Amino acid sequence: MSELVAKITLAYDGRDFHGWQIQPDQRTVQGTLMDKLGRLVELGGIPPGAGRTDAGVHATGQVSSVPLRDPTQLERLREALPRMVPEDMAIVAIEPAPVGFHARFSATGRRYRYRMLRRRDPFRRSSHFRPHGPLDVGAMREAAAALAGAHDCDSFCVKSSLEPGRTRCELREVQLLEPAPDELALVIEADRFLHSMVRTIVGTLVEVGRGQRPAGCIPAILAARDREAAGFTAPPHGLVLEAVRYPD
Amino acid sequence: MSELVAKITLAYDGRDFHGWQIQPDQRTVQGTLMDKLGRLVELGGIPPGAGRTDAGVHATGQVSSVPLRDPTQLERLREALPRMVPEDMAIVAIEPAPVGFHARFSATGRRYRYRMLRRRDPFRRSSHFRPHGPLDVGAMREAAAALAGAHDCDSFCVKSSLEPGRTRCELREVQLLEPAPDELALVIEADRFLHSMVRTIVGTLVEVGRGQRPAGCIPAILAARDREAAGFTAPPHGLVLEAVRYPD
Repeated sequence: MSELVAKITLAYDGRDFHGWQIQPDQRTVQGTLMDKLGRLVELGGIPPGAGRTDAGVHATGQVSSVPLRDPTQLERLREALPRMVPEDMAIVAIEPAPVGFHARFSATGRRYRYRMLRRRDPFRRSSHFRPHGPLDVGAMREAAAALAGAHDCDSFCVKSSLEPGRTRCELREVQLLEPAPDELALVIEADRFLHSMVRTIVGTLVEVGRGQRPAGCIPAILAARDREAAGFTAPPHGLVLEAVRYPD
Repeated sequence: MSELVAKITLAYDGRDFHGWQIQPDQRTVQGTLMDKLGRLVELGGIPPGAGRTDAGVHATGQVSSVPLRDPTQLERLREALPRMVPEDMAIVAIEPAPVGFHARFSATGRRYRYRMLRRRDPFRRSSHFRPHGPLDVGAMREAAAALAGAHDCDSFCVKSSLEPGRTRCELREVQLLEPAPDELALVIEADRFLHSMVRTIVGTLVEVGRGQRPAGCIPAILAARDREAAGFTAPPHGLVLEAVRYPD
């Protein structure tokens, strides 16, 4: 067993990938990374990812890791890997990681951003969701704030992918920003996320913004512990995995 | 004959269009616009465009025009057209234009921007060209400055699309900007452009930046009046038609 590990930070435009997770006969980020890594080092298995992003979801700070035989392999990866990945991926950093580091199991937090557009823009249609109709941003912000804290988040997770007893998430930051006059962004950080959780939160906040739900609806939705209690699932193309946190 | 004309300013992501100009069995911007306009007003013919952008070229300020029967039709266009165009197009403005206005024949200038990227970025790969290798930006800027003024520009035009005696272009502005540390942009304005002219100028400047041509090469290229004298044609996806000028 190797004691050296390379921590690989990567970015990708999710548009042409069938998500992170490797699947037979599909172009996935994990599959593409594994193919390139496998030409440079011996892989002990499938390289892990800190966030299993769905099809269409983007990343600027996804993290993977791979064990190394010796320190020269780190240099080899740094030299060769960035030029081997396709144009819709980029290697942001390759760093030596502490013994036992594992991109997924060592992670203590994930930070996502969901981007929305308030007017039509042909050039941001692949990266921003444009909800129809006017939005009450104040009400959305009030609802977003009610999400901060530790909760059982079953109501924001697709039923079929719930793991029993693994529904508790600590939402450390939930902020609705206006990065530009015609943009909204939900920035959300938690120790972990359930499947489709950010997108279901966004869909619920949009329903609040449209006046279809009251700004104070969040506590009752959380208490229901039922996906039916929450709003629609916002589309994947507005979502970006921005950062993964690890112990210092 | 109508004396009223609507001036239509539009934006589009060129990626999924086979260029501006209408063609049978192809998705073009002009064809799409004509289809939507034709549902709202009686068209006397194909709506003109100030710049005939190639397949893959974008626009933020393309201009078209359509004659109107009466002023109520202007309101009708303003109401309906913006919501009728597909998501990769946007109507920027619909304004009343002076009698006799024609988007193409009345235009006195066109302004293009060509965007380049100096590092890999998955999210800008549809809007920026990334030339390989290091670039000497000072040499590129020197060469760009030599383009300002009125010249016969045959050397920067695909031979097959040259119209005899129509090769004179007045380049009013040619500037190489660095909008961000990892970006370059050529901003170029002229009374008119020949086919592929901006892209051939960019290809030539990139060759200067790579040291394959001297910074002082431009006068000899112009004097040659031969496409073979200039550099490669840069790809369409870096190019944007930003603005069209008309007399006040």
